[in-house]
Amino acid sequence: MSADSPTGNISPQAGARARLRRTQPTAGELLSGILSGNKTALSRAITLVESTNTQHQQKANEVINGCLPHANKSVRIGITGVPGVGKSTFIEAFGKHLTALGKKVAVLAVDPSSTLSHGSILGDKTRMEELVKDANAYIRPSASGDTLGGVARKTREAIILCEAAGFDTIIIETVGVGQSETAVHSMVDFFLLLQIAGGGDELQGIKRGIMEMADLIVINKADGDNLKRAALAKTEYNRALHLFPAKASGWQPKVSTCSALQNEGIAEVCNTLTEYFTLTKNNGYFEAHRREQNTYWLTETINEQLKTGFYNRPEIKLLLEENKLLVQQNLLSPFAAAQQLLERYFSGKTGR
Amino acid sequence: MSADSPTGNISPQAGARARLRRTQPTAGELLSGILSGNKTALSRAITLVESTNTQHQQKANEVINGCLPHANKSVRIGITGVPGVGKSTFIEAFGKHLTALGKKVAVLAVDPSSTLSHGSILGDKTRMEELVKDANAYIRPSASGDTLGGVARKTREAIILCEAAGFDTIIIETVGVGQSETAVHSMVDFFLLLQIAGGGDELQGIKRGIMEMADLIVINKADGDNLKRAALAKTEYNRALHLFPAKASGWQPKVSTCSALQNEGIAEVCNTLTEYFTLTKNNGYFEAHRREQNTYWLTETINEQLKTGFYNRPEIKLLLEENKLLVQQNLLSPFAAAQQLLERYFSGKTGR
Repeated sequence: MSADSPTGNISPQAGARARLRRTQPTAGELLSGILSGNKTALSRAITLVESTNTQHQQKANEVINGCLPHANKSVRIGITGVPGVGKSTFIEAFGKHLTALGKKVAVLAVDPSSTLSHGSILGDKTRMEELVKDANAYIRPSASGDTLGGVARKTREAIILCEAAGFDTIIIETVGVGQSETAVHSMVDFFLLLQIAGGGDELQGIKRGIMEMADLIVINKADGDNLKRAALAKTEYNRALHLFPAKASGWQPKVSTCSALQNEGIAEVCNTLTEYFTLTKNNGYFEAHRREQNTYWLTETINEQLKTGFYNRPEIKLLLEENKLLVQQNLLSPFAAAQQLLERYFSGKTGR
Repeated sequence: MSADSPTGNISPQAGARARLRRTQPTAGELLSGILSGNKTALSRAITLVESTNTQHQQKANEVINGCLPHANKSVRIGITGVPGVGKSTFIEAFGKHLTALGKKVAVLAVDPSSTLSHGSILGDKTRMEELVKDANAYIRPSASGDTLGGVARKTREAIILCEAAGFDTIIIETVGVGQSETAVHSMVDFFLLLQIAGGGDELQGIKRGIMEMADLIVINKADGDNLKRAALAKTEYNRALHLFPAKASGWQPKVSTCSALQNEGIAEVCNTLTEYFTLTKNNGYFEAHRREQNTYWLTETINEQLKTGFYNRPEIKLLLEENKLLVQQNLLSPFAAAQQLLERYFSGKTGR
């Protein structure tokens, strides 16, 4: 903007914005900002979480640990669906319905493709125009990173920050490709699969693994000419879901239809969620599952960082390239090559 | 045996056996034994590969690197199928057919369940009575280990030893559970899925991922009353296979029927294999794919050993248990807990 240019006049508002960008708030300042529900503090803390700078990461850890006693008071909902099923429209309708009920809704994303393209789902916030303007909603695009594991870790840390900022419903969006659903499934309490009615062979295109994770399948775009097909699809999905073994949660997965565009069927989805959380909070699954997820993330973080520490070392990068060539030409076994690399790595650390 | 007991008379044969067990051949002795096709030397070298003792592992690496220039002259075939499809009967008929053609056949196994139960597929060698007696065949049960990754690595090292011993056809058997097919797929040139004709809903029970890996689906037990059902199943599988995207190998996966028990259809399976290897050796896929697999195993071995080194350290085990409790009680974030553990690990190495 011209007001911010070195030659132009600087308006008082732009000056305040610039100061805010320039100052580096302390971990304590960020923490108290988050706990008072300040979205700017929340965003800045998430940016710290996403940073690869070691000092930023230390500061991020301080903020996260400060948030921890105030987190864990939400429900976490994963939503997946391939492009074209109307995910943004659904999340907007769903989110608005929840804020109208007095809920505070945060929407985060895990998008492995953003890692490659540096693009991002949710990046174009105008896709959720209404929800963006809602004071009780917070929308954050997917973090980028070298690995899905890294992106997922950052999203999971962002969940804790959002919860400490008072958001009681956390929605994690992901696209139906690759391993991202598994990562999202491991950080949510409830997993919703969004579909549309196809040409009768509903079950062909969808991965069995994803159906097994779903607690609810919602068939979107059930309006106009689609109504009959959606009803048929519902029957077919219901039959398929009954073939899977019973879930540890004690919940029998459900199927429902909706039209996010016409705001129909959204209340039913919310009722199903309430039913699910009542059941799993009463039978102890909700808490037990979260404890399990925490342990899983502890191990995942360790494994991820062991690898990052190894592969990012300059001397390892060099030797790895050399050894790859030897291995590909059958001059060195993959195992001996690995052994050499590991010895180099640990001797660099111990001086052995 | 009583002849071996301290109080009994020791027969000359038993004495020789005992000496053979007691002596520790050098890496050079093992290597020359293997290269001359000695099965005892081969077995002892594989035992070294499977050992968790550091000295044994160093010796194993020496033998493997010595074998490497003599390996890589075989075809490697993965065979999977759930219990009950007649895998042993099929491998016996298939193996005998190959040795009759002048081939030298080694059969190895990757069995994740043996890791848990300390049992093993192929452990009961009497399942392949005829093949065991065949001078041109070598059968070795699955290695055991703490992780599938570890078991798979050992099997892949055993492949190199078998090839250097002159075996030109390596069969890797696995049961159709868990992630073991993926591990086997990553070490073979050709992947064969063994099935039997079911009640018409062939595709329900089988994992899509496994079908996608298959280069050939063989429907076994196509005899007697089963003949018609097997033919129907063949049609259905063929249709399903055509729905998958084209393979990088340029090969269109096939379906055939056989009766391993009556030795029918085995020659057709061998012809398909010949067709596949002619195609992929001519179009360059065979070599390119092996180079890719070598790189994959280099990385896999590193990742596996980074984890083993970490989780097996006594002080890490202790702190991990403590931190797991704190994390489960939400007193410490999984990320901060991981950070603590990683700092402890690396400070132990560097004296930081």
